Amino acid sequence: MKLSRQPVTERDDDARHPGYRVAGHGSFDRMSIGDLALERGGVLLDAELGIVTLGELNAKADNAILLTTWYSGSHAAYVRHYVGPGRAIDPSHHFVIIANQLGNGFSTSSIDPGHDAATHGGGPPALSIADDVVAQERLVRESFGIERLALVAGCSMGAMQAYEWATRFPDRVERIAAVAGTAAPTENVQILITALLNALHGEENTTASLAPLRRHADLWALIGFSETFWNDGGWRALGFSSRVEFLEKNFDPLMLSRSIPVLEALANKWSRAGRYNDGSTIALETITAKTVVIPISHDWIYPPQDASLDAARIPGTTVETIESTDGHLSILGQSAHYQAQFDNIIGRLLRN
Amino acid sequence: MKLSRQPVTERDDDARHPGYRVAGHGSFDRMSIGDLALERGGVLLDAELGIVTLGELNAKADNAILLTTWYSGSHAAYVRHYVGPGRAIDPSHHFVIIANQLGNGFSTSSIDPGHDAATHGGGPPALSIADDVVAQERLVRESFGIERLALVAGCSMGAMQAYEWATRFPDRVERIAAVAGTAAPTENVQILITALLNALHGEENTTASLAPLRRHADLWALIGFSETFWNDGGWRALGFSSRVEFLEKNFDPLMLSRSIPVLEALANKWSRAGRYNDGSTIALETITAKTVVIPISHDWIYPPQDASLDAARIPGTTVETIESTDGHLSILGQSAHYQAQFDNIIGRLLRN
Repeated sequence: MKLSRQPVTERDDDARHPGYRVAGHGSFDRMSIGDLALERGGVLLDAELGIVTLGELNAKADNAILLTTWYSGSHAAYVRHYVGPGRAIDPSHHFVIIANQLGNGFSTSSIDPGHDAATHGGGPPALSIADDVVAQERLVRESFGIERLALVAGCSMGAMQAYEWATRFPDRVERIAAVAGTAAPTENVQILITALLNALHGEENTTASLAPLRRHADLWALIGFSETFWNDGGWRALGFSSRVEFLEKNFDPLMLSRSIPVLEALANKWSRAGRYNDGSTIALETITAKTVVIPISHDWIYPPQDASLDAARIPGTTVETIESTDGHLSILGQSAHYQAQFDNIIGRLLRN
Repeated sequence: MKLSRQPVTERDDDARHPGYRVAGHGSFDRMSIGDLALERGGVLLDAELGIVTLGELNAKADNAILLTTWYSGSHAAYVRHYVGPGRAIDPSHHFVIIANQLGNGFSTSSIDPGHDAATHGGGPPALSIADDVVAQERLVRESFGIERLALVAGCSMGAMQAYEWATRFPDRVERIAAVAGTAAPTENVQILITALLNALHGEENTTASLAPLRRHADLWALIGFSETFWNDGGWRALGFSSRVEFLEKNFDPLMLSRSIPVLEALANKWSRAGRYNDGSTIALETITAKTVVIPISHDWIYPPQDASLDAARIPGTTVETIESTDGHLSILGQSAHYQAQFDNIIGRLLRN
């Protein structure tokens, strides 16, 4: 079965939530994948993945790379900062599929018209990382005829999807790269997720208030960047002349435009990751894919020692640390020093 | 002039805000210090400092130690965890004065009856660390006849007061110890303070809501403890069997009982510290007191490198790091390993 593909362009922006418009994130395609039975119960009817593809699948269908998105991220950062001519992931050599997470505002999400009605039983579905990976596997196989991906790579919640691919579909992925993320949230990350959800609550009677998104952004400013980024003015390297200018022109517009129900769905998915409905946990010991675990040196959300604990459970894996005083949100990919290190590590993995 | 001293005991609790009662914090004395002209303008009429004294002043009046409080802290933690027989600070040898910050709920504060009327011009005064130190100096000299303190020591915002003592009254303090704090807030700390203030805002029409204090507590849970504290279960050493039990029985009662206006006054004071009304900044280079700068190894609010930047400006100072994976809030003082290291460092300073 070839599943249907529907382009989403700027002409569709009027019907879209302001934080999820093509003008801000770039055009993408909605791929129908049919009804999706969810791990936690219920069925997502007529589920769709918002994707971007770059390059061409070769005749042997062995040059496909899947990139998986992070919390509140989209295809945009991968298109702009991770892929390109001369990069380790190069559309002139690779067929690149960037798949948005379910619920993230680009794949089937609470902001879609008629969303509640489309989920079995109504109400927001309890999504899981496993649902993302089941949906992506169906897309890759049925839409593109790919039996085995050369690489699944992702940052933060995207790393969770990469680990899920390697444990759920071991024969269908040759390599994985887990950047700035663990297979399951650590206790420290559960503290963060609780704070994010509590920040988003409140002001029920004043839904026009930006206060919940402001508080949510404050948490990301505090923990998403390292102390060194703020104290040494890491925003200068990004082209800004003050902390306030960086926040007002770069960070706040990104963070304050989002949909609260979308963020809540993603935070809840994050919290549940790595533990299955039947009580079992993700079996990193069973991974056969060539794996590289890539922490970021100054990451306060996932410090390098957390990545090492995962790596110790995966046969034959290597840990390669990206040095960046920017902290976790260096995954936004805007810095040349980050891109160069990512390319070096991924380039070696792809030649392996 | 001997200023008046008024004991506050459990019999006074009914008239006090629930978060600031003697039953929770221990008895203390309110010391009148007269009208206090504030650095940022206005006069605090009939200002009072809430203090605890332990031990006796010796005949030469050279054994006095002043301990200064942190954000949302009180005399309680110092009485319980920093001072005692056989400790470096020992009331059988030292005359210990623990002085609550202005505005903290124990010294003159917004929760005092008639507070607004007592401040010149009405409304909450803009307090500064300099105001605290001017008030403390008056207390020490006029109430106790002490010309020179053997030591001023404090943690976090308490460290700011110690630095202010050494620069404002260089002849009146022989030694200072600055634990887990810098003389002025770093950029990283400004990000935290902004997040704390935004967390406390909102829900104006539902003042019974605990949500603002919940969000404020979430921030402290996230950044106040280190990632290692949460991931390695540092709460076990404090006698709890789970993260949830620690939060519900220890941390939340401490954090959710507080007064929002008190916290706002302290956060604003914190934000302004180290910079004076005339635009000048605190002159650490002029310090003549024997100084020890004491960062905490896993402190995410004030990482050790920040303390070292202050230390480099102070002639002849030493940096002594307390090793604690608990992070910044190890200053609560509950852990034996923290107490032992504090005593070792302070003991050597006092013999110097």
